[in-house]
Amino acid sequence: MSESAASDSATIPRIGIIGTGAIGGFYGVMLARAGFDVHFLLRSEFDAVARNGLRVDSQVHGPLVLENVQAYASAADMPRCDWLLIGAKTTGNGGVASVIVQAAAPDARVLLLQNGLGVEEELRAELPDSLHLMGGLCFVCVHRTGPGRITHQAFGAVNIGYHSGPADTATRGKWVEEGASLFHQAGIDSVAMDNLDKARWQKLVWNVPYNGLSVLLNASTTPLMADADSRALVQGLMAEVVQGAEACGHVLPEGYAEQLLKVTGHMPDYRPSMYHDLTEKRPLELDAIYARPLAAALAAGCDMPKVRALYHALAFIDRGNR
Amino acid sequence: MSESAASDSATIPRIGIIGTGAIGGFYGVMLARAGFDVHFLLRSEFDAVARNGLRVDSQVHGPLVLENVQAYASAADMPRCDWLLIGAKTTGNGGVASVIVQAAAPDARVLLLQNGLGVEEELRAELPDSLHLMGGLCFVCVHRTGPGRITHQAFGAVNIGYHSGPADTATRGKWVEEGASLFHQAGIDSVAMDNLDKARWQKLVWNVPYNGLSVLLNASTTPLMADADSRALVQGLMAEVVQGAEACGHVLPEGYAEQLLKVTGHMPDYRPSMYHDLTEKRPLELDAIYARPLAAALAAGCDMPKVRALYHALAFIDRGNR
Repeated sequence: MSESAASDSATIPRIGIIGTGAIGGFYGVMLARAGFDVHFLLRSEFDAVARNGLRVDSQVHGPLVLENVQAYASAADMPRCDWLLIGAKTTGNGGVASVIVQAAAPDARVLLLQNGLGVEEELRAELPDSLHLMGGLCFVCVHRTGPGRITHQAFGAVNIGYHSGPADTATRGKWVEEGASLFHQAGIDSVAMDNLDKARWQKLVWNVPYNGLSVLLNASTTPLMADADSRALVQGLMAEVVQGAEACGHVLPEGYAEQLLKVTGHMPDYRPSMYHDLTEKRPLELDAIYARPLAAALAAGCDMPKVRALYHALAFIDRGNR
Repeated sequence: MSESAASDSATIPRIGIIGTGAIGGFYGVMLARAGFDVHFLLRSEFDAVARNGLRVDSQVHGPLVLENVQAYASAADMPRCDWLLIGAKTTGNGGVASVIVQAAAPDARVLLLQNGLGVEEELRAELPDSLHLMGGLCFVCVHRTGPGRITHQAFGAVNIGYHSGPADTATRGKWVEEGASLFHQAGIDSVAMDNLDKARWQKLVWNVPYNGLSVLLNASTTPLMADADSRALVQGLMAEVVQGAEACGHVLPEGYAEQLLKVTGHMPDYRPSMYHDLTEKRPLELDAIYARPLAAALAAGCDMPKVRALYHALAFIDRGNR
């Protein structure tokens, strides 16, 4: 492990990565290389990573190799961590609470690096009150290519908001800033979001069209942007999500959807995580990314008919894919 | 050819089948077996049909074989027909007018056995004023299984409406009745529709969901009806088409969508024609079944967002399928 960042181990937060897939692996490697004390929980890839380490083939930073990974097959073996970064799928959140409880220091900050809506609410009920629960929205193009191997294509920012826990309103900002600071020290953009629910809706403007259409149309971002019809469909879905957010009280920045559209048109060709979930026969993250936003918007009086049609189609595909 | 129906050839209308696919072949064989003088125009299947005849494997009527088919490779060789039944795809309507002109008797009745909206309008501009143009909506489960071979799974009704031509309002009914009578004599249900545009919208309530979803979800009717999500999607699409029809001035019968849903749930598992178009790399009939209804409804102030989303998705798939 690189030792560049810090020598005074007492002041260095210990970070645990729960779910070392593309997201957890990428950020974990970046933080470890910056000198943080990072511990990785793995399941099927434990042997491979304990033996060969983690490797991020980054098209931005070059190849990043982390040898001698502090890897664990069981949360019970991990040291108590000050920060826990949850990179596991929302579809696996059923078992994640007990893992967190085992790996968390008494006032640990738990940062959910997941997409979709309502993911903190679901987890909060199962966590001790002493733990801080936060959400992180990752704007990054990464995917797993094999055991302990990740390709990083572009971007990396993590926007962080406080969800719930022992901090009062005045001190929430302190924890959010600490989280952002971890990422900054690792060379990663991070913005503190004062409204996590709004930040989640904002992220959905990208995830709803591109994740779903990559599955439905078996297409990555470049062909989706190049065709007039799929592009119109992306725009139509984005517009509905912006309306849904507004119905739920979150007015997104003017021109936000157009900006995402432009960025996506210029970024390297990318297959969103849901596409990889499909091809690897994992459950699709439909509750967090579709069902809960649909329910929240509908409860606020806003139907999102194109999003609903896409959701039904994906649910049919998901059921046939298990 | 069967000679059961008629001996006085002067009173027997001569029928030409333009486009002997599943639809043209099925109705042509049924009419020929009833004793009508039926002439079939074929393209790629001419040799096979001239040699081996036409065969309909009907799960309703048993095997129906028509030997010694009056088959033609060119419309110029056909005798002038009193009725022309157009079974060709709407995507091939560009060249069909000149074929009709060659094969039509001076006051021929041209019956378009096609789905979708605006198909007569497109053709009318290219036809002589002397020809009657009518539309026929086929409620039938048929598909082509090989050269000159058709499987008939269920149903058969053809509902007929007058579109345009030399008949005045008072005499239009006479021609529609004559058309219905042809089918009745062949043992096929047929209802005269006084409003063809309404009849076309009514048929769209079935075609819009099932044709498109069979392509999008790679699924026939039974799995589409068995899954709660795809069923909800079918219902959502149907409801929008009913609203679109109403915006265009056509109030469909109360409970019509629910009735179609029930019938489809009980019928034999069926792959709509658009699915076969996809697998055989033919263009999908997206203009007639999606683009024109969407434009007509929108012009009448009614958006159909789920239908629009489906249309964009299908257009993307169609473009990649050529």
